[in-house]
Amino acid sequence: MTTQAWLPRGAAAVACLTFDVDAETGILSADASAADHAMAITHQQFGPDVGVPRILGILGDLDVRATFFFPGWVAERRPDLVTRIAEAGHEIGHHSYSHVPASSMTRDQEERDFDRALEVFRRIGVPIHGHRAGLWEASWSTPAIIAERGLSYDSSLMGRDTPYRVATPKGSIVELPPHWSLDDWEQYAFLPFPEIGQHIKNPADVLSMWRAEVDAMRRFGGLFMLTNHPFLTGRPARAVALEQLIGHILDAGDVPILTAHELAAQLSEVVLPEHEHTRPELETGLFPTH
Amino acid sequence: MTTQAWLPRGAAAVACLTFDVDAETGILSADASAADHAMAITHQQFGPDVGVPRILGILGDLDVRATFFFPGWVAERRPDLVTRIAEAGHEIGHHSYSHVPASSMTRDQEERDFDRALEVFRRIGVPIHGHRAGLWEASWSTPAIIAERGLSYDSSLMGRDTPYRVATPKGSIVELPPHWSLDDWEQYAFLPFPEIGQHIKNPADVLSMWRAEVDAMRRFGGLFMLTNHPFLTGRPARAVALEQLIGHILDAGDVPILTAHELAAQLSEVVLPEHEHTRPELETGLFPTH
Amino acid sequence: MTTQAWLPRGAAAVACLTFDVDAETGILSADASAADHAMAITHQQFGPDVGVPRILGILGDLDVRATFFFPGWVAERRPDLVTRIAEAGHEIGHHSYSHVPASSMTRDQEERDFDRALEVFRRIGVPIHGHRAGLWEASWSTPAIIAERGLSYDSSLMGRDTPYRVATPKGSIVELPPHWSLDDWEQYAFLPFPEIGQHIKNPADVLSMWRAEVDAMRRFGGLFMLTNHPFLTGRPARAVALEQLIGHILDAGDVPILTAHELAAQLSEVVLPEHEHTRPELETGLFPTH
Amino acid sequence: MTTQAWLPRGAAAVACLTFDVDAETGILSADASAADHAMAITHQQFGPDVGVPRILGILGDLDVRATFFFPGWVAERRPDLVTRIAEAGHEIGHHSYSHVPASSMTRDQEERDFDRALEVFRRIGVPIHGHRAGLWEASWSTPAIIAERGLSYDSSLMGRDTPYRVATPKGSIVELPPHWSLDDWEQYAFLPFPEIGQHIKNPADVLSMWRAEVDAMRRFGGLFMLTNHPFLTGRPARAVALEQLIGHILDAGDVPILTAHELAAQLSEVVLPEHEHTRPELETGLFPTH
Repeated sequence: MTTQAWLPRGAAAVACLTFDVDAETGILSADASAADHAMAITHQQFGPDVGVPRILGILGDLDVRATFFFPGWVAERRPDLVTRIAEAGHEIGHHSYSHVPASSMTRDQEERDFDRALEVFRRIGVPIHGHRAGLWEASWSTPAIIAERGLSYDSSLMGRDTPYRVATPKGSIVELPPHWSLDDWEQYAFLPFPEIGQHIKNPADVLSMWRAEVDAMRRFGGLFMLTNHPFLTGRPARAVALEQLIGHILDAGDVPILTAHELAAQLSEVVLPEHEHTRPELETGLFPTH
Repeated sequence: MTTQAWLPRGAAAVACLTFDVDAETGILSADASAADHAMAITHQQFGPDVGVPRILGILGDLDVRATFFFPGWVAERRPDLVTRIAEAGHEIGHHSYSHVPASSMTRDQEERDFDRALEVFRRIGVPIHGHRAGLWEASWSTPAIIAERGLSYDSSLMGRDTPYRVATPKGSIVELPPHWSLDDWEQYAFLPFPEIGQHIKNPADVLSMWRAEVDAMRRFGGLFMLTNHPFLTGRPARAVALEQLIGHILDAGDVPILTAHELAAQLSEVVLPEHEHTRPELETGLFPTH
Repeated sequence: MTTQAWLPRGAAAVACLTFDVDAETGILSADASAADHAMAITHQQFGPDVGVPRILGILGDLDVRATFFFPGWVAERRPDLVTRIAEAGHEIGHHSYSHVPASSMTRDQEERDFDRALEVFRRIGVPIHGHRAGLWEASWSTPAIIAERGLSYDSSLMGRDTPYRVATPKGSIVELPPHWSLDDWEQYAFLPFPEIGQHIKNPADVLSMWRAEVDAMRRFGGLFMLTNHPFLTGRPARAVALEQLIGHILDAGDVPILTAHELAAQLSEVVLPEHEHTRPELETGLFPTH
Repeated sequence: MTTQAWLPRGAAAVACLTFDVDAETGILSADASAADHAMAITHQQFGPDVGVPRILGILGDLDVRATFFFPGWVAERRPDLVTRIAEAGHEIGHHSYSHVPASSMTRDQEERDFDRALEVFRRIGVPIHGHRAGLWEASWSTPAIIAERGLSYDSSLMGRDTPYRVATPKGSIVELPPHWSLDDWEQYAFLPFPEIGQHIKNPADVLSMWRAEVDAMRRFGGLFMLTNHPFLTGRPARAVALEQLIGHILDAGDVPILTAHELAAQLSEVVLPEHEHTRPELETGLFPTH
């Protein structure tokens, strides 16, 4: 077992449970014409309507706190749901306004989208400490935008599997890295149009894989950053698997479950690896363009 | 275990076994040129020719009743098969005429397709109580079209995993929601042209996943709405897995197996959650169009 | 256990082991530019160079006879391999000349391709009794072309999972139906260009699935028509799984392993279901064309 | 168990552990615009930053030597990492300069790319003995280019699962063949843009599959040529599975683990099968062009 400077005393690893409440924006951000597809829209609405309450029940029963990332568009239409989650002790995170990838926007577009979401959360009255890009598709400007607005962390980049700092002209922010292998999208997302995936894994197999990842994280002193979506994991057998996964983490005894904000706050004075955040410079013609 | 108002007395969950007899329309509705592909056409014809009789045998042996959704085009060409299924005590459901997605039609086109199928079923002489859209691709008009014709339920939308009402200008209908994770298409469909999927899962794994889903449905008081296709599940090892799945449901003792119509009829006086059925209004330019 | 008229006395099912020796044509028939891809070409050449000898060793050790379908193009370039297989007691089958789908050819093109392969086999001196279309992509003319040339069977269509007759103007032929679920391509084929699949299944899982299919075939009296490709199944762990699968069939005691020709010959006087082989007539505009 | 001439005395099979340190070039070589995607770039940088040190730790603990193939572009930007790997006793291999497929280049372009990488390695001061094409996409000129520069082996082609010689006008080189089924890319690579795969397999299943392949290689006397990528296998549970796989190889007792160079050097005087390396000649019009 590795001990690393960033780990809380006595901890072999840390777990963050995060839920991206994309709802309709999960498909509208891929293509506005998704709005013509009634079944697909209801498939997404299941998330806030059924998935979130079910997940809140499980978290409450196990007495753990999580982070719910909301696109501003979704929060604007469900302020009561946002408030209910926050009042149960969970964190609300910033997940852009429209869920459209920041990497497809100009910096100005990204700032306006970012600020529009902040304004929604301000009106609802929930504090915002951190950000996750839609589809994790941060731009090369995203960390600076976050730092300029005084948020303390991002959770979109994958340069490490432990927390690290990302340098910006306005000071560094903490990166709490997610990864594709700890996301339920790649396990459960199936929708032909917009095509968001063709994945229907057995929740028992997903549970088995993620339990092993928790155990491996304990060996290497890693951050188990779970990204789940209520429209996916809110389905019955998947919700049961989530509950069993949390039970496994709790049973380990040395893997504290923290909200992303709690973790970022604990790290504010800790020395972490610092990464530059700059677009690679490419020699003209070396790599193909399609 | 949750008890919910919609559940029959003593039931922890309810199961509906539904079979979509798409036959040739399963691929023709994707592309008319599928008719040039002799193997693909025979692949689809296996459904009514071999799959349905085999499934009827299994249902009969276990003494359970199911719902068979027929596109009108298919029923028109196999009236004797439709009659045989109905005479064995099963329900015949409306699965459009052509299996072409309603979401790709104007309302007028959808109504003509809908009525053409109704006329086929009237000529054959089987009563029709409910509807499922081809590919579950209901339009924003589908519930109203159903209500206007006096049918009582739909089974295409995914807003919940329990029955709910969908409001229409002609009164509400009952929605009996299916889901991708309870469909054999995502487990077994493999055909390169038209490309309907690249899935060849082990039936033993599918059985394991669906048994767990039955168990989880019992915990949350859900509707286990199984969607199977005779051209897929009619194959030997898959048919055996279906039989074992039904055995698992029966063994539970608290999960009645009802036809969709039986369930909708029982729910006619029950208070259910009611959902609006309206296309989301989108701000121009917020979401990309491709 | 079902007994069916077509089954040999005492048999609960029948197994045919077939190997499609596509070699380079497996990718050239998708796109001639595959010839520019040296690795992909060697990936295909592994089949005749290493896979076939390894499979012949396994079949010889277990003393069973199989059918090897050769595209004429491949046989023309490896006459000694064809002769070696035939001399070991196995059947050589006709797998088109070029492996290009018959469904993409005019009838005249298909006849010329068909006859060109027959001429190759004649020159090598191996008898030909049956045919399998490249990619199983038979045309609506294929059975008639087969019947006109005096071959007795086809193995491309999927209308049943037992042998059946296909009517042609020149008399009927026997169809020995394959299926996607009993093909190693959908389990093991991975090549990005030409993209032939993205499948790398665990041979142990494939073995488990196919053992269960043998068992289910015994229950329903089916034809276990295995389609394997030496460039895929010739790899070590897959070859071991094939050996174990054959062992499972032999252990059953009531599933004779026959070459396709042996089975077709035994069925020549048996009454089988007869299918028409005609393109579905489509109403103009009912189904979309892309 | 087969004994083959190429096997070291007492060995039933040989294992090479190879790691392709593609880093950013793993996606830039697919599309230069990947540079706009900050998350994707960090996803690739995880390989040299976290994956390589973790893998070095595992190899060191188990006291085995491996081969790390570097694109010149990556080595140029991380000379200290290259040196650190070499000083730990591992081999550095040539993996092109840009990771762009050689099959998409003219011979002149390929030679310039090849030599540019050689120059990088010369400046760093590590000896180069062999080559692997980016994406294994060797051209029909690649072996000759390798032979002309005095390197002794290639590891890109798949004509056998044992070492063989590839003839070139400048004499033959040794081919140490990899295969898709022994590559972690097909098990673990998931990235939507550039789309490099949609694979998130359970490391426990991958371990199970590869252990069986080691065992089957021992039966047939094969070369277990493992290709892993630090940005994929460097993740915690996958790294643990790698460690367990190496443990399985060591436990076998008759499968020496050699670097590719060590193996090629041992084979320099051994008679091996020799393959021509020539583009198939195609009859005009026989195969379709898209």
